[in-house]
Amino acid sequence: MEVAVRVESSRRVAEAIFFLKSIGSQIMTVETSEHVALNVIEDKATCLRIDSVRSTTEAGSGHPTSCASAAEIMSVLFYSVMRYDPHDPHNRDSDVFVLSKGHAAPILYAAWAEAGAFPRERLLTLRKIDSDLEGHPTTLLPFVDVATGSLGQGLSVGVGMATHAKQFDHSDQRIFVLMGDGESAEGSIWEAAQWASLHKLSNLCAVIDINRLGQSQPTTLQWELEIYKARWEAFGWQALLVDGHSIPDLLGAFEAAARVIDRPTIVLARTLKGKGLIGIEGLEGWHGKALDKPTAAKVIAELESQLSGADEDWKPHLPVTLRSSSQTTAKSDTSSGENPPYVIGGEEVATRKGFADGLAALANTDPRVVVLDGDVMNSTYTEEFKKAAPDRFLEGYIAEQNIIGMAMGLAVRGKVPFASLFSCFVTRAYDFIRLAAISQLNLKIVGTHCGVSIGEDGPTQMGLEDLAMSCAQPDFTVLYPADATSAWKATVIIAEKSGPCYLRLGRPKSAILYDPGEQFAIGKCKVLRKSGKDSALVVAGGVTVFEALAAYDRLQRDGIAIRVIDLFSVQPIDRDELIASAHAANGYCDHR
Amino acid sequence: MEVAVRVESSRRVAEAIFFLKSIGSQIMTVETSEHVALNVIEDKATCLRIDSVRSTTEAGSGHPTSCASAAEIMSVLFYSVMRYDPHDPHNRDSDVFVLSKGHAAPILYAAWAEAGAFPRERLLTLRKIDSDLEGHPTTLLPFVDVATGSLGQGLSVGVGMATHAKQFDHSDQRIFVLMGDGESAEGSIWEAAQWASLHKLSNLCAVIDINRLGQSQPTTLQWELEIYKARWEAFGWQALLVDGHSIPDLLGAFEAAARVIDRPTIVLARTLKGKGLIGIEGLEGWHGKALDKPTAAKVIAELESQLSGADEDWKPHLPVTLRSSSQTTAKSDTSSGENPPYVIGGEEVATRKGFADGLAALANTDPRVVVLDGDVMNSTYTEEFKKAAPDRFLEGYIAEQNIIGMAMGLAVRGKVPFASLFSCFVTRAYDFIRLAAISQLNLKIVGTHCGVSIGEDGPTQMGLEDLAMSCAQPDFTVLYPADATSAWKATVIIAEKSGPCYLRLGRPKSAILYDPGEQFAIGKCKVLRKSGKDSALVVAGGVTVFEALAAYDRLQRDGIAIRVIDLFSVQPIDRDELIASAHAANGYCDHR
Repeated sequence: MEVAVRVESSRRVAEAIFFLKSIGSQIMTVETSEHVALNVIEDKATCLRIDSVRSTTEAGSGHPTSCASAAEIMSVLFYSVMRYDPHDPHNRDSDVFVLSKGHAAPILYAAWAEAGAFPRERLLTLRKIDSDLEGHPTTLLPFVDVATGSLGQGLSVGVGMATHAKQFDHSDQRIFVLMGDGESAEGSIWEAAQWASLHKLSNLCAVIDINRLGQSQPTTLQWELEIYKARWEAFGWQALLVDGHSIPDLLGAFEAAARVIDRPTIVLARTLKGKGLIGIEGLEGWHGKALDKPTAAKVIAELESQLSGADEDWKPHLPVTLRSSSQTTAKSDTSSGENPPYVIGGEEVATRKGFADGLAALANTDPRVVVLDGDVMNSTYTEEFKKAAPDRFLEGYIAEQNIIGMAMGLAVRGKVPFASLFSCFVTRAYDFIRLAAISQLNLKIVGTHCGVSIGEDGPTQMGLEDLAMSCAQPDFTVLYPADATSAWKATVIIAEKSGPCYLRLGRPKSAILYDPGEQFAIGKCKVLRKSGKDSALVVAGGVTVFEALAAYDRLQRDGIAIRVIDLFSVQPIDRDELIASAHAANGYCDHR
Repeated sequence: MEVAVRVESSRRVAEAIFFLKSIGSQIMTVETSEHVALNVIEDKATCLRIDSVRSTTEAGSGHPTSCASAAEIMSVLFYSVMRYDPHDPHNRDSDVFVLSKGHAAPILYAAWAEAGAFPRERLLTLRKIDSDLEGHPTTLLPFVDVATGSLGQGLSVGVGMATHAKQFDHSDQRIFVLMGDGESAEGSIWEAAQWASLHKLSNLCAVIDINRLGQSQPTTLQWELEIYKARWEAFGWQALLVDGHSIPDLLGAFEAAARVIDRPTIVLARTLKGKGLIGIEGLEGWHGKALDKPTAAKVIAELESQLSGADEDWKPHLPVTLRSSSQTTAKSDTSSGENPPYVIGGEEVATRKGFADGLAALANTDPRVVVLDGDVMNSTYTEEFKKAAPDRFLEGYIAEQNIIGMAMGLAVRGKVPFASLFSCFVTRAYDFIRLAAISQLNLKIVGTHCGVSIGEDGPTQMGLEDLAMSCAQPDFTVLYPADATSAWKATVIIAEKSGPCYLRLGRPKSAILYDPGEQFAIGKCKVLRKSGKDSALVVAGGVTVFEALAAYDRLQRDGIAIRVIDLFSVQPIDRDELIASAHAANGYCDHR
């Protein structure tokens, strides 16, 4: 059978092709009836350049040349390709744009203003201390899902979002990620590339703005587009070379991206840094520099002269379907009903096992929970969750940065991702964790095999800096349970707590300290031993709680009483109880 | 001109080809007269398997199957290809082997024992608490240059070493790195791959032991060797597919690696996990598991039956040249003569500028100093060093993990590498920094643009966790100078201090606090304001010193005296002065 296809929305093309192919058809031609006049897109690109220059010059700093190279890419995406509602950017059916090259923030802000999200005048508040239009995008802005500006993170976030749309929300949402060429040297890019092609994320389309110039010099590959192409194709992507300032080229590439059904697409766009900024185009030494006012005036006048004055009656292309909620998965309300099965005086159980059992229980009660593994599921026991909810278990392999980046993308879309790793390897993704914290994303990082108690595997396998790492981040909840019961409860607690959390877990089996019904809370410790005549306070966490209890027993025999606390919540810390206990143990010194 | 070449050492082949090509010759045939009998190499591979099983079974833990897949690779490298002195592994002319897949430690130990570095009996101390044969290799062992076991780091370390041999030591040393297939999912691999091909490191040869199985499941690419090949070739490497258990195949590949002169080589070795371990070969579920004693006995008996009993009179192939010292560059003794040029009351200068000026001064006085940049040299001012010593300036582009990994490799070879980055992006390489600290390598990490004082670039560009990160590492020196003079001095101090150091620097210009002749020391603070009636002690660092001094002035007007300390050395901290000052300011509480 041969079919000539004509569909109203380019959005439906890939779907139609897929269906027709599945019934044995051969696709001959594909056309769509949607288009925006080219000169409208061109004018909008020029406006984006003008706004980028104007706002950075007003601020006296910023990256106008990194914006200018991307003007046509942004214009084509925002005013022709993407389907979204500028007034409801989180809508689950809207296409998503991630500006991985976060230093091009001014053109991101200009694009949303031009789309009607907020008044253009506000662009002139860029980089002011009381403005949410910061030097690099943050989630203070409704249209920014994750903070960017540490390069090489946006693609992994996009992979998480694309996975959500394809695997969990079954939406035809498309995810676009704009990267710089300098940032494509970051290894995390290739972790994301690998995962995206393995999972055939055809709803993901990334663009590299190949303007040849980094901050301080030309990039490694400069304009060697064929090498870029060979690399991305070797990683399983559809790779398309385009002139990044040609609107028809870009439109064609995004059309081709929408039609491929078995792989993600990378658009390799050859551009000029500072394109359109007269006297600055393609020059070195102009990264991260605002134009002075006379230069800006000249540049803007030249840009304004290029405007065609085309009919500006542009309207956003809304998604075909528009479902109301951006929260795609509701939590069931049954999650707190269950209790862990461990018994005081019973078998010893590792805290990692307590976590995994709690997580497996959540598999049934909280459909928001998704687990990401770094090829350690048989040591962290998250294989139990995989058995219970295989569709919500994502194997991230040995690529921790991409795992955390995907978790960031999933968190943005309303999932509660648990990224489960050996604690020592959490260090690999610290820069991602930093941006997750700045964005206050609802992701959960679980580090097992912490501390020296892992023993004979040696120091490279010991997670010793994980507490310093996580506690140094703003508003990060950090729990360190001592036994399997509290680990089970901590798992449920962090699933319910909104915001970034870190759960620290040990490898060895240990005794059960708490009854199944014991209540735990963030910010609350447990006083395990106390008397009216305590002469010292010992605050312990995890495996050290058992050492503290052993010390208590030993000292008891000599008639010395000490107070022993199981800290449980490292951040926030139980300040009141600690001060009160220290007072009681005669050890608190208050100079106020 | 046409030449038939016959040379005595395969080591000289690439050199001869290079020379002959440079005079316009065409190379027709290349032969070498060196060889080891195949059955000797085969027997040694079998012995390595036996020792790996024996030691892990004795320990009751470890990774025998990950050793077994690599037995022929190790045997060919250690007993035919590499030129080294087992009793002087650090010799600058010895070939270098980096076991990036650190969990295969037992076969590394077996290989060195078999080569004569230590008695084979000691292998049975594997993983014992008082043995230096730890579960993953550490630098306690003379033949281990860097600790490994966090996957995906060895290649960058090898890149640093290969760069040293090629660019600084002009030696014909070759660097071999053995990776696992699971670890090749780490993005850092591709950062290293990119740099190595850009710099045509033909003295670098990496091997991937493609045994198809990760820890908890098959790897992403399993045995899709053509995809591996396409990726590595796209990254500019010579990629060779071999049967990893065929000794002739492996010999041929290493020969081909030695002959290529314009690129590094990757040997993609298809192997079987657990190869030769009867009943376990190629099975899932056997990662990181020791065989029980009866199984081990059966496996060892089978292996022993395969020994040909070939003449065991094997001798190590020593390097052609053998220079005595492993310290390849001596420090000049003139570095401390100079002082910084800044004047109290003179122009304001940023601490990053003080660092860069100090570094540029070191360019002339300390030939060990090498600078690595992450495309920020125009903001960190390390471009000054580049001008002074262009051959010792390495541009690492936006790939922080590889930058720190290369610095590790350079430090091993006696250089004093300064890796200079924005402090916020140091987070990207935290796992590498962790292993550098465990290895106590002599590398210097410099983080500029720290703290909120960078201002309008926004929170993603603010390095706020760098102190927590660096101070959480063992024996890491951490300095945080307040003015350009102390930053200049701190730079010289850490260049002279052996071991890992972190230098924290700010972006804004600030006043000069210290005379050029002021002396600074690790572990020593500066008391800037004191009196006999101080009612508070303010300890400040970096930009906050100026705020503390302003507070001092303000309080002086109200007749309140405070003591102000510029901490300078964050780790180690000046415990004695802080306690004494706290006492003097009536604020120290000692319950001892």
